[in-house]
Amino acid sequence: MKELGGRTPLEAATKPALNSIAKDGICGIIDPIAPGITPGSDTATLAMLGYDPLKVYSGRGALEAAGSGVEVLPGDVAFRCNFATVDTSLVVLDRRAGRIANEDASKLAESLRKVSLQKSLNVKFLFKNTVQHRAALVIHGPNLSSAVSDSDPEVAGKRILKVKPLDASSEARRTARVVNALMEEFRKVLKDHVVNKERAKRGLPEANMVLCRGAGTIPKIDTLQKKFGIKPACVAAVSLIKGVCKVAGMDLINVKGATGTPETDYMAKAKATVRALKTHDFVLLHVKATDVASHDGDVRLKIEVIEKIDRMLGYIIDRIDTDATHLAVTADHTTSLITRNHEGDPVPVVITGPYVRRDQVVEFGERTCAEGGLNRIRGLNLMPILMNLTGKAKKFGA
Amino acid sequence: MKELGGRTPLEAATKPALNSIAKDGICGIIDPIAPGITPGSDTATLAMLGYDPLKVYSGRGALEAAGSGVEVLPGDVAFRCNFATVDTSLVVLDRRAGRIANEDASKLAESLRKVSLQKSLNVKFLFKNTVQHRAALVIHGPNLSSAVSDSDPEVAGKRILKVKPLDASSEARRTARVVNALMEEFRKVLKDHVVNKERAKRGLPEANMVLCRGAGTIPKIDTLQKKFGIKPACVAAVSLIKGVCKVAGMDLINVKGATGTPETDYMAKAKATVRALKTHDFVLLHVKATDVASHDGDVRLKIEVIEKIDRMLGYIIDRIDTDATHLAVTADHTTSLITRNHEGDPVPVVITGPYVRRDQVVEFGERTCAEGGLNRIRGLNLMPILMNLTGKAKKFGA
Repeated sequence: MKELGGRTPLEAATKPALNSIAKDGICGIIDPIAPGITPGSDTATLAMLGYDPLKVYSGRGALEAAGSGVEVLPGDVAFRCNFATVDTSLVVLDRRAGRIANEDASKLAESLRKVSLQKSLNVKFLFKNTVQHRAALVIHGPNLSSAVSDSDPEVAGKRILKVKPLDASSEARRTARVVNALMEEFRKVLKDHVVNKERAKRGLPEANMVLCRGAGTIPKIDTLQKKFGIKPACVAAVSLIKGVCKVAGMDLINVKGATGTPETDYMAKAKATVRALKTHDFVLLHVKATDVASHDGDVRLKIEVIEKIDRMLGYIIDRIDTDATHLAVTADHTTSLITRNHEGDPVPVVITGPYVRRDQVVEFGERTCAEGGLNRIRGLNLMPILMNLTGKAKKFGA
Repeated sequence: MKELGGRTPLEAATKPALNSIAKDGICGIIDPIAPGITPGSDTATLAMLGYDPLKVYSGRGALEAAGSGVEVLPGDVAFRCNFATVDTSLVVLDRRAGRIANEDASKLAESLRKVSLQKSLNVKFLFKNTVQHRAALVIHGPNLSSAVSDSDPEVAGKRILKVKPLDASSEARRTARVVNALMEEFRKVLKDHVVNKERAKRGLPEANMVLCRGAGTIPKIDTLQKKFGIKPACVAAVSLIKGVCKVAGMDLINVKGATGTPETDYMAKAKATVRALKTHDFVLLHVKATDVASHDGDVRLKIEVIEKIDRMLGYIIDRIDTDATHLAVTADHTTSLITRNHEGDPVPVVITGPYVRRDQVVEFGERTCAEGGLNRIRGLNLMPILMNLTGKAKKFGA
């Protein structure tokens, strides 16, 4: 950043805890997927948990649904949904129905769950609102496929789209038929719903349609327990991250005050992490706030969030048995304050704990870590490195 | 080199422009293919343009033919050819027919193009001489295969070889039959050609046979335009490099005075590059001369060439908008002055431009760059890294 004298927010932040572990540990840089490849949070987190996203990633919908507490089984097809406002000819006026309040969305979702589809379609569905206009839809039944298009036109001013099969399979045709039938039934329920009548009275956009996108299935992966013989847990607030962790077989620890925003309760997450370490071999503590600050282009906020994370880390370091615990700090991807988007640059990493090969790096930053003893690794390498350090690795060969 | 006090020619050369971008940019080392693997110019250039040569490389013949201006279509089989001198029992006396002049070779090629094969073979062919004794042959027709052996015995004193199928397919058998028939027809035309009669009078070796080798097909790859959404161009003199660039969908810019030798017009290439940057998103400027100097084992020449490249680079740096342009300098492979051959050592790289993570390296060299912020990457990583820096990358995941 020019305004930081050419430094990054991480370089500019005051971060005694991060620097102390950089000094004690081994540093490096990580390409979450591969050099120059811009990751999503889902693909990057899969990689950093030891799963090759190029092989197992199957769309965001199913992961987000799983993370929001909706059960997604192998074979189910899941969608990310929005409550939206449409006019009588189904042209989208507001893709977020005025960012409808959770309370209104909950009431509408409750009604939608009562919709019954023709028996001949032979499917069940789950529908759950999450935050504001956001919701998850899971279709359950035989012979379904995620190869179907979105009903969400992605921009206001366009008519909603008919969901179409994306390949010639009978499963894709069947799934498209089911989703279109469901969207039609949803429309009937929402059109004259009492919640919408009240919203109209209050001058608020009616949530009179559901848009769906990102059809996906659950990745078929071995749990971390099976892969590495560990009992893992996750402290995260964001549905997408929780979904990845759930699919990886991790216990999801819900923390009061953890919001996935810069106002999250960092210390509550730190405490939950320290507690979880008493009952689990491996705990992933995820903070979304740095990403949010960058998406908003807010340099000051990003530095502030990093400094809060540093204090959170300080709390944890003071309370874990550093002679028996390995600690890794990294990011699932870079989010640029300039482009306000994810970027394909490598992220810094530090690992501390017994018998790491301590290097000469004394500051945790993008450029200082590039000079560290881990050199440049891939996201997919991180778990095997940690499992090796903690003695959980199995030998390949004799 | 012992005579350079243990330094490499790059380390010993005076190179203010290279050093200035090393200071401004981020440095590293690249394994063109993989650590320790000795690349060809074709496989390395494919990799550095973002194509995995282990997956797409299908022989030099087709690439060189494409680069020399012969059209090669998917399904065609192309060969690298030499005009050669053979005796009456077809023993090769000179594989290069005394490095026959372009003028003589052109006249012979013109006659060879008139050869007509049996209709029943159902093929067409293109034959074009390039530089001196070198030529390209492309066979076009249904059911062809590149799984055929060479007619070139590789050394003088041996009889020319019959082209044989290298697998049991009917396509390979058919292709061998076609090439053998063509070589026989070529021999008939060349044996008593007026050009050869005149060469004999002047005491020059007759170009009385064509040798072919390196059967290949065109790699089936997406263009750079399709892969990255860029409009790419290439400034190169060497047919093989031009062929790779053509297959990658790049506009080939021919520069007067660009020869692919140490006597090439460096400044003409620099000017063409600066011009091309006004109409293209991406320009590859390739200089062959360092490779030539090493193949010849000429230390002084190599240093001289590096210093000329440095001045060429200086010209370019002074004329591009460094706030809006990313510049990468690297090599497609190492060529050793000791072995006079390509080697599998990594090559240095530097990238400058907006928002690169500037490191502490201040000199462009094999060993200094190894301490840079890019660490050690693969040839295949270079384009994704550049596309990420220039905002052309697409996100993988959500």
